[in-house]
Amino acid sequence: MFSFKFEPTQPGRSRLGSISTPHGVVETPAFIFCATKAAMKSLSAEDMKAADTQIILSNTYHLMLQPGPEVVEKMGGLQKFTGWRGPMLTDSGGFQIFSLGHGSVASEIKGKRMTGRKKTLLRISEEGARFRSYLNGREYLLTPEESIRIQRQLGADLIVVLDECTPYHVDKNYTAESMEMSHRWALRSLAEFKRGDTGTQQLYGIIQGGVYPDLRKAGCDFVNSHPFFGHAVGGSLGASKEQMHDVVSLATEHLCRERPIHLLGIGGISDIFSGVEQGIDTFDCVHPTRLARHGGALVRSMHNPDETREHINLRNSQFRLDGNPIESDCPCATCKNYSRAYIHHLLKAQELLAYTLISIHNVSFMNRLMTAIRRALKEGTFAQVKKSWSRS
Amino acid sequence: MFSFKFEPTQPGRSRLGSISTPHGVVETPAFIFCATKAAMKSLSAEDMKAADTQIILSNTYHLMLQPGPEVVEKMGGLQKFTGWRGPMLTDSGGFQIFSLGHGSVASEIKGKRMTGRKKTLLRISEEGARFRSYLNGREYLLTPEESIRIQRQLGADLIVVLDECTPYHVDKNYTAESMEMSHRWALRSLAEFKRGDTGTQQLYGIIQGGVYPDLRKAGCDFVNSHPFFGHAVGGSLGASKEQMHDVVSLATEHLCRERPIHLLGIGGISDIFSGVEQGIDTFDCVHPTRLARHGGALVRSMHNPDETREHINLRNSQFRLDGNPIESDCPCATCKNYSRAYIHHLLKAQELLAYTLISIHNVSFMNRLMTAIRRALKEGTFAQVKKSWSRS
Repeated sequence: MFSFKFEPTQPGRSRLGSISTPHGVVETPAFIFCATKAAMKSLSAEDMKAADTQIILSNTYHLMLQPGPEVVEKMGGLQKFTGWRGPMLTDSGGFQIFSLGHGSVASEIKGKRMTGRKKTLLRISEEGARFRSYLNGREYLLTPEESIRIQRQLGADLIVVLDECTPYHVDKNYTAESMEMSHRWALRSLAEFKRGDTGTQQLYGIIQGGVYPDLRKAGCDFVNSHPFFGHAVGGSLGASKEQMHDVVSLATEHLCRERPIHLLGIGGISDIFSGVEQGIDTFDCVHPTRLARHGGALVRSMHNPDETREHINLRNSQFRLDGNPIESDCPCATCKNYSRAYIHHLLKAQELLAYTLISIHNVSFMNRLMTAIRRALKEGTFAQVKKSWSRS
Repeated sequence: MFSFKFEPTQPGRSRLGSISTPHGVVETPAFIFCATKAAMKSLSAEDMKAADTQIILSNTYHLMLQPGPEVVEKMGGLQKFTGWRGPMLTDSGGFQIFSLGHGSVASEIKGKRMTGRKKTLLRISEEGARFRSYLNGREYLLTPEESIRIQRQLGADLIVVLDECTPYHVDKNYTAESMEMSHRWALRSLAEFKRGDTGTQQLYGIIQGGVYPDLRKAGCDFVNSHPFFGHAVGGSLGASKEQMHDVVSLATEHLCRERPIHLLGIGGISDIFSGVEQGIDTFDCVHPTRLARHGGALVRSMHNPDETREHINLRNSQFRLDGNPIESDCPCATCKNYSRAYIHHLLKAQELLAYTLISIHNVSFMNRLMTAIRRALKEGTFAQVKKSWSRS
């Protein structure tokens, strides 16, 4: 039921591929949208389909707390529960445990400062991660085995091993020891996966190692030597675009080519072009829908007067009387039917419809972007297409 | 471009009709949905169309403050601005000025207690109503002429005269004097309407008079004697269903039959059956979408274990593992694709999608209800249909 096929393309280590799953085929390079709590923020499964979405992901951390994996299982698994009948991925729960636990690893990973959020991580040990529910304070222990069992109950096509996601500020020693433990956790995840394997799911291994080249290389060697279906590049990608580029490049250089490679948590337009060039097959990020909730609409550079951004902010008063759609050449339901002026009004009036309309555009935009990239790889026009979608 | 045709049916003063407008025909009895700030709460124009909606309304009060009538006019009028290409109505602005101004007339009208909301109404005089914007404190004067001019800028098909909407607690003297002033305002509204009439809009007169039969009768005589396109029953409808029934019955008894009759602010299922029986052609209420925002889904009595309500509350834990749709026989997009358990989860997780999904059902429900009522009037099965939709 599962397979990954690819053919090398230009430039760099780029490639065109397809991941076959029981719920359909994902043409790669592809973007995976975050339906964190088994729902896209303000969008229905039909909206996602109409915007040409191939695959979405949900977060084990959120779903194990609410509604609980047993509810999703009883309701027939994520695809039946959510109405999204296409391919899905779940993460292991680790990222959010450490992210919410430390304050915010999400910021750390992108080299930003720690935020003051309340810590919920109680203890990391060989056994697993002990943390408190952010909903009711209840204590949980997530082990590698438990993460796999929960992801089996949730029922996504692609699932991920539990790892410790190390933040940017920790030193090399901690990063190395943490990675070693993550490797032991990965083997326990793999063993638990094999125990219950019915052929309806496939497991991704994760490469940690922070910004340290020798650790990253060891991480690649580790996953290469075990029977994972795919690989995900995780952990801290450094404090700058250059450092991220180096970390990703090092990973894709050492990872075996036969398995799909996912880059965790990255979704900027120029970052995607850069990732594709280095051989990344899939990306995920909350960016398209989170941006929408702040009034930001993704636009190609030709539609953007602000050279430093990949979006326009429809809250700005310059759009008050702008009768044009977000992008004049965009075929999405929002651009076909609504003006910037109307969405500006909806944002000012705090109408929920604003978030839906911008999200439809942003999701459609990301899917158009990935389609354009795949066509460019096929036709050998990557450089031109990159230039027409991004400034950098 | 405009016409109202009808044929009398059974029972009572019920009738089947059609209101023709430049944006389409409204088959009556019909329900008019509230797109208060030029947007349905959490629904797109396409969602409304897919749920078989005939007509929506927007509120002059909200739109005159934000985005301002000049913005809507510059963007081509409400239908172009909102993407809703069907028939529309705007109210005069009066209801909200007095409702927000007194605390809450909305509650008063239905005989409920005053709420403690901050008063924004500064002064009612022969000239008009002076009030403060709830957004920025700026002072506005809304005169009958200004209300018509603003409604012309907004561009809905059906517009309404400015009146003072008297709350339940005022005495007969105040009600009588207020009604007399509302009549003078109605004549000024009519004169302003005639001045700018281009044939693309039609004007409704309003019947006030509180719960006093002689005043209500005088109100009917007044609107009958002036060239309004339609009539709307407004003001306090009393403290009980019985009193509302009497007020509405008295109005429809005395109003001339040749014009459509609208009942302002009423949207309960049994109230609609009762109103139709008394000769009401159109209804409006925020109920279907407001209820959705609190987790309430409208259901026919056969789907409702709670005999005292016309809805089920999907927040209730009884729906946690309920794999059925809201209504098993409902053809709406929500019932076709989503379970009560999933919507329950979305509500618990505070996902915006919950409000969209329930609103789609509730809007579709109201349109199915009105279609069933029209068919029943045609086929002479009103009593049976009433029994299958409502308990009272």
